[in-house]
This record gives sequence, C-alpha cells and structure tokens, in this order.
Amino acid sequence: MKIQRARAWGIVTGTLAPGPRNAITDVPGVTVGHCTITGGDANTGVTVLLPCPDNPFLHKLPAAAFVLNGFGKTLGLMQLQELGTLETPIALTNTLNVGLVHDALVENMLSRCDRDGYELRSVNPIVCECNDATLNKIRRRAVGAEHVFKAISAAGAQVEEGCVGAGRGMICHGLKGGIGTASRLFRLDGQDYTLGVLVLTNHGRLADLTIGNIPVGAELADRLSQYRPDRGSCIVVAATDLPLDSRQLGRVIRRASVGLARLGSYIGEGSGEVFLGFSTANAFDPRAAAPVRSGLLCSDDVLDLPFRAIAECTEEAVLNSLFTAVPVTGYSGAVVRALGEFWPL
Amino acid sequence: MKIQRARAWGIVTGTLAPGPRNAITDVPGVTVGHCTITGGDANTGVTVLLPCPDNPFLHKLPAAAFVLNGFGKTLGLMQLQELGTLETPIALTNTLNVGLVHDALVENMLSRCDRDGYELRSVNPIVCECNDATLNKIRRRAVGAEHVFKAISAAGAQVEEGCVGAGRGMICHGLKGGIGTASRLFRLDGQDYTLGVLVLTNHGRLADLTIGNIPVGAELADRLSQYRPDRGSCIVVAATDLPLDSRQLGRVIRRASVGLARLGSYIGEGSGEVFLGFSTANAFDPRAAAPVRSGLLCSDDVLDLPFRAIAECTEEAVLNSLFTAVPVTGYSGAVVRALGEFWPL
Amino acid sequence: MKIQRARAWGIVTGTLAPGPRNAITDVPGVTVGHCTITGGDANTGVTVLLPCPDNPFLHKLPAAAFVLNGFGKTLGLMQLQELGTLETPIALTNTLNVGLVHDALVENMLSRCDRDGYELRSVNPIVCECNDATLNKIRRRAVGAEHVFKAISAAGAQVEEGCVGAGRGMICHGLKGGIGTASRLFRLDGQDYTLGVLVLTNHGRLADLTIGNIPVGAELADRLSQYRPDRGSCIVVAATDLPLDSRQLGRVIRRASVGLARLGSYIGEGSGEVFLGFSTANAFDPRAAAPVRSGLLCSDDVLDLPFRAIAECTEEAVLNSLFTAVPVTGYSGAVVRALGEFWPL
Amino acid sequence: MKIQRARAWGIVTGTLAPGPRNAITDVPGVTVGHCTITGGDANTGVTVLLPCPDNPFLHKLPAAAFVLNGFGKTLGLMQLQELGTLETPIALTNTLNVGLVHDALVENMLSRCDRDGYELRSVNPIVCECNDATLNKIRRRAVGAEHVFKAISAAGAQVEEGCVGAGRGMICHGLKGGIGTASRLFRLDGQDYTLGVLVLTNHGRLADLTIGNIPVGAELADRLSQYRPDRGSCIVVAATDLPLDSRQLGRVIRRASVGLARLGSYIGEGSGEVFLGFSTANAFDPRAAAPVRSGLLCSDDVLDLPFRAIAECTEEAVLNSLFTAVPVTGYSGAVVRALGEFWPL
Repeated sequence: MKIQRARAWGIVTGTLAPGPRNAITDVPGVTVGHCTITGGDANTGVTVLLPCPDNPFLHKLPAAAFVLNGFGKTLGLMQLQELGTLETPIALTNTLNVGLVHDALVENMLSRCDRDGYELRSVNPIVCECNDATLNKIRRRAVGAEHVFKAISAAGAQVEEGCVGAGRGMICHGLKGGIGTASRLFRLDGQDYTLGVLVLTNHGRLADLTIGNIPVGAELADRLSQYRPDRGSCIVVAATDLPLDSRQLGRVIRRASVGLARLGSYIGEGSGEVFLGFSTANAFDPRAAAPVRSGLLCSDDVLDLPFRAIAECTEEAVLNSLFTAVPVTGYSGAVVRALGEFWPL
Repeated sequence: MKIQRARAWGIVTGTLAPGPRNAITDVPGVTVGHCTITGGDANTGVTVLLPCPDNPFLHKLPAAAFVLNGFGKTLGLMQLQELGTLETPIALTNTLNVGLVHDALVENMLSRCDRDGYELRSVNPIVCECNDATLNKIRRRAVGAEHVFKAISAAGAQVEEGCVGAGRGMICHGLKGGIGTASRLFRLDGQDYTLGVLVLTNHGRLADLTIGNIPVGAELADRLSQYRPDRGSCIVVAATDLPLDSRQLGRVIRRASVGLARLGSYIGEGSGEVFLGFSTANAFDPRAAAPVRSGLLCSDDVLDLPFRAIAECTEEAVLNSLFTAVPVTGYSGAVVRALGEFWPL
Repeated sequence: MKIQRARAWGIVTGTLAPGPRNAITDVPGVTVGHCTITGGDANTGVTVLLPCPDNPFLHKLPAAAFVLNGFGKTLGLMQLQELGTLETPIALTNTLNVGLVHDALVENMLSRCDRDGYELRSVNPIVCECNDATLNKIRRRAVGAEHVFKAISAAGAQVEEGCVGAGRGMICHGLKGGIGTASRLFRLDGQDYTLGVLVLTNHGRLADLTIGNIPVGAELADRLSQYRPDRGSCIVVAATDLPLDSRQLGRVIRRASVGLARLGSYIGEGSGEVFLGFSTANAFDPRAAAPVRSGLLCSDDVLDLPFRAIAECTEEAVLNSLFTAVPVTGYSGAVVRALGEFWPL
Repeated sequence: MKIQRARAWGIVTGTLAPGPRNAITDVPGVTVGHCTITGGDANTGVTVLLPCPDNPFLHKLPAAAFVLNGFGKTLGLMQLQELGTLETPIALTNTLNVGLVHDALVENMLSRCDRDGYELRSVNPIVCECNDATLNKIRRRAVGAEHVFKAISAAGAQVEEGCVGAGRGMICHGLKGGIGTASRLFRLDGQDYTLGVLVLTNHGRLADLTIGNIPVGAELADRLSQYRPDRGSCIVVAATDLPLDSRQLGRVIRRASVGLARLGSYIGEGSGEVFLGFSTANAFDPRAAAPVRSGLLCSDDVLDLPFRAIAECTEEAVLNSLFTAVPVTGYSGAVVRALGEFWPL
C-alpha cells in the first residue's frame, strides 16, 4: 500500500495551480497542528488551525460561515456571523467532545491575553466536529484541554493529513477519511493571491464515490459488500489573503459544496456540512481606537476566481484525506479500509 | 385642526439631536419625491427615494435589508442581500402595483444609463409596498410609469409628509398614516455623521397607540368605537453617511423595530415589516477596473450611536406620518380620521 | 441532428427510477405551459407552472425557497419564506420582464378569485428569471400579460422542453439551453411518492461541461473556440407529493446544487441560482375557519430519498434542456449552437 | 425593601390574562431548576429548563431560534434551526462557562438515554449565556457538571426568580437583574392555550429604563450617578402548547423584542439578544418507525394572539427579574443595587 496524495497519483483536480505546499498553510500566517489519541477504546483527537501568528483576539480577521446541512454540533457560529470576525483558533474534534474543547480554547485565550496584557472577559471559540463513533468510544470524550494545548503548540506550516488529529476516527465514502488540505493560486490585477482549504471528512457513501470522473465507488462497494447509507459530516475551512469581507467570504464558501458533489456526495440527511472562511487581510485590533479606518475592498466582479479555487481545493483536499489515510481498527474490532489499499484500482 | 410635526407639538423622541430638516434628506445626496393619485376610486400613489445625485447603477452603494415580518410583496431584496448593494432608486407604492412600478424603474434606469453611455442589460429595482385597499380601489393598479417618472422628477431635499405619494391611502394605528421622516446627528472621533429614516406607515391597532409614553390609543379607540385588529405593514428606509458595510447596515436596521414597539405595535401577523438601509460612503462604479481598492471601514464597537439613532428616527418618523396626515374619504365612502383632529387630547 | 432527451441517448443519471413522463408533471396535479415569443428582435417567452388544478390562492401549498446565488431578480421570495406557502402559479421569464409578468399574475389571480367568489386584495406572485440578452433584445420587455395568460391556458401534463417559453433565449454551458424537466419515484413505508423538477438553464461555461462523468466541454470548447466566462443563472423548481413542511422543503431544494456541480458548474458569480420547492400535500384554504387542524407530518430521517431524487432530477433536467434545444440565431446575428448538433461526440 | 413581582406592585403589562403561576411552567410539562454559586469570588450559577417530563431526546419537540443580536456565545442553535427540534434541556449560565455546561448536558443525556435503553451517540445540547463578569470572577468557570445536575434535579413547576441560578451575577438596566418569568392564556376555537416565557436579563442602560410607560430610569440614573453604556445580553425562552411548527415558532419569538423595547432597550451593540421557542405539541420519538404520521397544524392567521402574548410575557418577565432581585456585592467589592430598594419611586 502506497501512501501519497491525489496529485502524486496523477489525479489533477481543476485547472488552477496549487501553492508550494498545496495546503491551507500556503496562505501566509496560517498554521495547523494535531493531537491524535489512540489506545484503549480511543480513536480520536483534535486538530487546530491558527489563523495568524499573533493573538487572534487582538488581531481579529473577517470571517463567515455557511451551513449547508446543520445536522451537527459546531459551536461559535452565531457571533462569527453577527460580527463577521474570527477571534480564536478553530478547533476540530469529535461530536461529543465539543464542550470540553470549547472550554480548552477559553483557557488558552485567557492565558494568551494575560501574556499580552489584555484582560479577556468574553471570547467566542469556534469548535467544529464530525462523529467518529464507529471507531472511537465517543461517549468517553477522550479529548481534554491538554490535547488541545498540544495541538496548538504543534501548529506549523507542514500539515499532516489522513488519520491524524480530529481525523483519526473519521470515515469518508465508507473508507478511512480524516484530514486533508489543498490550495490554489490566482492572479488579480498583477497581484498574486492564495486560497487554501482544510477538510475533516466523515461523509458520503462508498457506492457514490467518483474520482477524476470515474465512479470507482460502485466497484469498491461490490468488492467490499458495503452498502451503508450516507451518514456523517464534512467540515471545510477556507483561508485566503484576498481582502474579502464577511459577506463575500460567505459567497466563496458556499461553493465548497461543488467539490463535495463532484466526488459523489448527495449531502446526506444525517450529516453536518459546515463551511467556514476567513481572510487574513484587514485584521482589526479591538484596542485600537479609530471608529473609522481605511482598509481594502474587493469587487464582487472578480470572485469567479476564488469560487473556482474553493471548489477545486475542496475536491482535492477530500481526495487527499482519503489517499493519505491508513486502515484503522476500531474499539469494537471493526476495520475501516483505506483507499490506498485498492489504488490503482 | 392644526397640521404640524411631532416636535412642533412638543413631543421629543429620544436624546440625539435631529438634522437641519429632521428628514432623511439631511444625509447628503439623498432626495425624495412623490406622485399622489386621487380622483375616481383612487387614493394611492408612489414615493421615490434617490440614494445619490448620480446614476445609482454607476454609483452603487452598500445596502442591507432586514425582514421582521415577510408577509408583504417587497421586490428586489434577494440581490440586494447577496451583493450588499443598492443600484436603483427605492420606490414605495401599493401592494398590487409593485409589478408595474418595478417595470417603470427598469425603464427609468434604461434611459438613464443610455444617457450615461452605459448599455444596461440587467438591473435590480427595489419596490416596497403597503396595502391601501381600504381607501383605494387597489385592484385597478392606478400607479403607472408616468407617475413613477413624475415622482423621480419631483425628488428634492424637502420631504412632504402625510397623505402624499405612496402614503395617500395608508392607515396607521387606525388613523390616517402615510409618509414620515426624521433624522439624527452623532459625532464619532471628531467627525459628524447623520442617519435619516423615511417610513411608509400602514400598521398597528388604535387601542395600542402610545405617544410619548402616554397610551392615548385606548381613549381614542373608545371615542371612535374602533377595535380593528392590527393589519397592514410598515416600510422603514434608513440612510447614513457613516461608512458601514452591508453586514453592519443589517445590524443597524434591525433596531428600527424598537421605534415601532414604543408606539404600541406588536408587529401584527398580517403585515410586512421590511427595513432597508444604505450608506452613501464607499460608492462603487462597476465600470472602474480595480479588483481591489481602498475604502473606509467602520468598527462595530461604535454602532451604539447609529442603533440609538435609528430607533429614535423610526419612532419620530411614524409620529410625523400621523401628525401631518389629514382625514381621507375612501372610494367606498369610509373616512379615516387624522390624529391632528384630536390633538392635543 | 437528432433531438431526443438524455435518457434516449443512453445517459442515465443516478439510480432512482423516473416517473412515467420523467417530468415534474408526474407529481399529481402539477401542470406546465409555455408561450414562446420570436420574430423581430425577440427570442424570449414565459413558462408557467401551475401547482394544482385548483385556484392556488384558495389551495395554498407548503413551499420553500433557497438562494444559492442571489445575483438575480426573482420576485416574491420574501412572503414565500415567511409564510412557507405558495399561492400563485410560478412564472419564469427574462430578467427585465419580471415586473410586467408579476402584474400579469396579479391580473390572472384577481380574475380567478372573482370567478371563485373571493375578493382578492393582496397576492404574492412568484416570478423567476434568467437573462437572455445575448439572443433577445431584452430591453424591449416583449413578454406582456397576453403571453402569460396564453401560457397559463396552455398548461398541461405534457412538458415541452428546450427553446420554448422562458427557455427560448437561454444559453447553458455555452450551448443552447432553456427548459428541462425530470422526475424520480421513491417508496416510503409502502407508499409511492414522486419528486419532479423543472429547470430554466442559463448558466455554466462550455469548457467545464461534464456529461455522464465525461468532460465533453473541453473538447467542444476547443472545437468552437469558445472560452466565455460563467455568466447567467439557473432556476430550479421542485414539486413532490411527500408531505413536507416549509423547513423540510428547504432542506430538499438545497441539494439541487449537487446536480449542477456534477455537470461542471462552479456556481459562477454573475449568476442567480434560485431553487424553489413545494409539496402538494397539506393544502390550506384561507377561507376555512379552523385555527388548528390535523395534517400529515414527515420525519426528517427519511429525507435521504428526496435528497437523492432532487440531485438526480436536477442533473437530468439540465441535460434534457441541452439535448432538446435547437440552434438559435439571436437578434444581432449571433448563433448559439445546440448540444444535439455534436452528439454523439 | 419589599420583594414582590411586578403585578403585586400593580404594574400590569398588556391585556391578556396570565396563567395560574404567571410562569413558563404554566405550559404543561415544563419545569425549571436552578443552582446558584456564591462564595469566594463567585456570583454565578446555572438555570435549566426541562421542556417535558420525559427524556427530551426521545420526545423531540418543534423548536426555533431567532438571533436579534448575535454578539453572544449561545451553543447549539445550528442543529436546532436545521431540524427544527429541541432534544435536550436548555441550560443558561455565564459566558465563559458554556463549554463545561455543554459537556455536562452531554453527560446527563448519556445517562438518561442509558436508563431508557437507548444508545446515544450524538446529541445537541442548548446552552445560552450572559456575561456576569462585573460581579463574578468569570474566568474561573465556577459552574461544573455537579451544578448542572443539581439544577436538573431541582427542576419543578415553581420558578424562583431574581438573583438565582444563572441570574446570580446579572445586571439589567444598571440594576440587579437575573431570572424572570411570566405567562399568558389565550383561547382559540374554544380551546385554551398557554404561552410562557423565561428570561435571563443582563442588558440595557439605567437611564433608558421605562416601567409602565414611566421613564423611571432617568431619575434613578441621576440618583445613582450611573451613566454606563448598554452592554450585556438578554436570553428569552418561550414555550407554548399551541401546535406550532418551527417556522411559526420563529415568527412568534421574533416578537419578544417588543417587550424589551418597551422597557427602554435599544438592543445595544455589545450584547447578545437570543430568543428560543418550542411547542409541547407534536412531540416526535426517533425510535418510532413511521416516515409519515398525522399531527396538528396551526393556521398562521391566528398568530396575533401568541404574538401579543410573547410581547407581554417578555416585558413582564424582565420586570419580574428586576423586582425580585436583591442587591449583590461583587467579587471586587462593587455593589449592584436592586430596583426594589427604590420602589415605589
């Protein structure tokens, strides 16, 4: 079994060029860290995305959320949508662990603001989740504050993919899913911009899986006699250095669904498809006094490029989550197979 | 019967100072025009707000809409909300006339863009409405293109209030309503800003009417033996020169409901409460090439001032629509009385 | 050039069985009519969907709308979303004609209610549009009330597809688009249900077109030297006899985007993707007195079937709009080619 | 200082009659419990509302949320809005404690479902909050699982108001706020229905406070030399036995703002105004098999009664939170005075 990303297998999604790492961390300042938990009956973990090198509460970024299917437990969207800003790291974990991870982000932000001499009294952590209950004894809520802090400490520009962090116990199109990432470059008015995507994949039916326009899932479903319904979720986080406001980020992330549909998802009922986006431009420091300041505004007319970029990135990031995964045996003995075991078909 | 505005009666709403005209036209560049239609069985008309002196399609302004009660027929909100821009005059008219008034705005914008050498192939007119069927034979759709063009030509900084334009046949809290306006000034960081409101009032029960904290409606309802339910609508249009984006304008206009509630409205079921807002800052010309440009950004932290301003303006504008109205006899002989006939109580 | 539907070409979309007509009119009671306008500089028209054989104002149906991209001029969504009901026929036409078609639906409903002895004073017509300005001299607004009435009179269970009605001037993936339809059957708890879709297609880039997982657009784009950007819109109307409420219909129609994405759409910026859905169950007569009545409730748990059905129907309906279209020469001499001219590739 | 509810002081809000307890628990099956935490630097707690006597996960109720101001950290709205159902108790607590309280509700539901023989793998707790940082050392997150379980055990039909549970550290209109409740009865078609409201009040400026149409706040602000801005939040939970679906509950709860506005709130910027509503009719057991079942449907035409009821209840519940509060000294020595100390003025 060969573990390599989709592009190494010759599967090229779309027409735009990827960034140097083909990862969300190609957007300057963005880093990602994982903490994976295994052993006993655990197959779970936490993945953290840091939107900027600075304290995000003192460096708030324009952000948006779009809920394609709200059958999920993501925390923190209300304020993100009202104020259009992101003020904490974004954490991904398992469904029943979101409360504890939320509290860990509160703790982390209190310490961080203490260090920066800012008295924090209110903060809005973002915690997204998928359900890993097939492989992980989810009722244990194995992810504690120490795991969140480890993931934050581990954050860097190199993004590990597959069965790591929050991705450890996830299942995508009936195969082992987890964490994936991709990026695209585009040029506007002589300026280069990057859009990157990080996904946590736990959605889709095997029989529906389509890769590079080939309906490979039907054959695999027969081989594995697997005809499970489409249950589970998919989280998509997008970052860009194009100066988009919250409304425009909302338009961009709505196109993440294109990437999911092309791989064969019907956006199943028992699922949470939640898309988040932020821009690293026009950061705002709440301590700065000016009620009105100057900033950068982007025209909606040019959004076709980031629209295409997010569709391509999402498709490739999901594929990367599948191709970098390894088979995992769950707490009850069930084994979830990896796409790489069967590729090339 | 004395016809004068609320403030002339000594009724002061809130604590902020009004602008020189105490009208939406205190926001520089904003003008309002009416065309009133009476005679035969008509008691109706059209009111037009021009958001800027220029062609609004070539001078698009940040805008937002909030629907508190969507039981109404306002046209054009979908694109306004997607793109966050206003690109035509805003027209107010009666419920069944919105289609014809929409078409008249299309015609007007085609001519205007022809004159400006721009080939218009798509445009999103905004047409709001209330139902004047008690006084006006509404099924006739008496408002034609010529009336819309007249209202546009008549637009100026002096705003006539009461039973004019779209307000001709409207009923508010069981008394004659119609058009009202008000404005407030506020200062941020040494800079003066204005927020103004224009209302079309056709909502509320007489028994619930409360003016300056005095429940005058109960007494008037007894005097007039009027116990009709709360049917009808209220349109609130707000303008400001504070540089707010679409999301922030949305936050501001949501507070218009405070002004309605203080006068005794319960936001009845058979009603459309639709609030629109736009900023005259950061205008955008679609012919200009730059994908990214510089502009002004406002901090959400200072929004308490425009929040208070819109609540005060809405309350005073509704009062002005009542105090400047005269009694009107409908096509079926029914007479709707004016508040001024009974004031001071 | 052979004109036949996708399925006749052997292109089978998805796994569910279509209804007897493979059309939205497989949902009992639903009918569709067209009026096509050509000659002079016109290539336009109107298509009308009647949701039930009865007066829809006196037979209101649960309904929902979802706006994937709001860069469009669809009229009537505000009340449809507030009350969750459809109370008129749904009309489809060209972008600048929506006002006149709205007024024609008002006229039609006034007459119809007169005949039924109901005094109509307020009504919420639904008018959707795409922009046919390449082939049609759109500024003329050629669609008048007489065309709307003709389309209503012509309505029946047999749905003509391709360059008819509102579809006359539309362009989809750079080829001639227009009207398409499809349906799917599914079984729940021993009961058969139908979901059908009607589309008006005017979206997509030729180079992106993918049919049956084959990226045919790239080859066609080279053959035709056509590299236009993705401009235009797509309207999707879905009907079902499954008793869904407005919230559930909203969940169903959000999946229409899956069908568009599979054919290669990136949901371009300059476009309006608007999805409507209604159920023919639980009809409501406003003249009936009971505040509380009994009705049918559907569990969300079973929605995976209508989710799959709408994705499949939308994909097949768009294909049908392409395969049944013929080449059309526009008012300026431009010719838009039909997919059937090149098929099989 | 006399501690009694608003009605005992002769302040009658609106015209509808209250239920026997004038509390949300007048809706059959609804109970409320508190756990208050004081001592050390704590002035905080948790309040829990149980929507039904049964396990709410196996007895899901139609529900809705409306966010008037999303500057808050309420958890769980995404799924509640997607599925339109409530499946756990609703917990209220302080801002930084929402993660831990969320986890406690997960624990509680796991145990409860274990007892009922149902294997729970996913659950959507609802946790609302206001910020008590002036009186409570909020960064300690003093509310643990044991406090949540105590509040659940303590739940009953008698609702204690004022500085209890989550209300312990809250400040409303510059005075001591906290928990309040009220209810209204109405009759439809010969059937009696109840609507009740529970509030957690932490919003408003003293100078703006208006009680029974008397602007008492201006005088009190002068007496106390208090001119603080409007910071803080207000949570409103409404329950009714009228069979409303999620969309209709959304319409009802949007009117809660009327009650807030009448007391003088401008819905300040730094605040979270979050309204929740549920109906105890049409409960749904996920274990029950039928995809389609019969249930009760309510006509929108009769909603004016619940609209009025929620406005009246919200106004009276906020007043009750003020009148039943006692002065509280915060961890830093600051004292927040109670309205009862000054009443009658």
